[in-house]
Amino acid sequence: MSQTELDVLREKVDELNLKILSLINERTAVAREIGKVKEKQGVNRFDPVRERDMLNLLKEHNDGPLEQPRVEHLFKEIFKSALDVQEKEQRKALLV
Amino acid sequence: MSQTELDVLREKVDELNLKILSLINERTAVAREIGKVKEKQGVNRFDPVRERDMLNLLKEHNDGPLEQPRVEHLFKEIFKSALDVQEKEQRKALLV
Repeated sequence: MSQTELDVLREKVDELNLKILSLINERTAVAREIGKVKEKQGVNRFDPVRERDMLNLLKEHNDGPLEQPRVEHLFKEIFKSALDVQEKEQRKALLV
Repeated sequence: MSQTELDVLREKVDELNLKILSLINERTAVAREIGKVKEKQGVNRFDPVRERDMLNLLKEHNDGPLEQPRVEHLFKEIFKSALDVQEKEQRKALLV
């Protein structure tokens, strides 16, 4: 395989990275909406049962090559990121 | 906001999770192809310069709500996952 073909593969990875970034940001924005609803309802944002449900759905749809433990690890980090954004915003709101 | 609206938001998150999963798996498959090319060329799969380039491109396109340090953390985990898949496959190949 020539250098050009390697470049084509790398461009493909860059495209996929940007799509993943866009979807993770979109996901974070929706999770933020959910957090606002929960806040109004006075319930805790972190919900381990819902988290397990999400991971189970991912398991059902995971055709690889990533193995399930790795998928779970990545998604737990994604979940944590969304909670982190919400906590920061809440702290800011409390300071206003 | 009613429970139904919360359910709608959760469905949206589930849809996004599955799209993200599919793209991360697709990315891992392309990274695997790149790894094979590099193996033939006898070069190391881990390339810190290329990794920095990918992170810089993500930074240029990151419109939030995720902050850049969090994006970098998540993508470093994604990069690591792809390398991990390749290393496991290589170990299997050596055992055959």
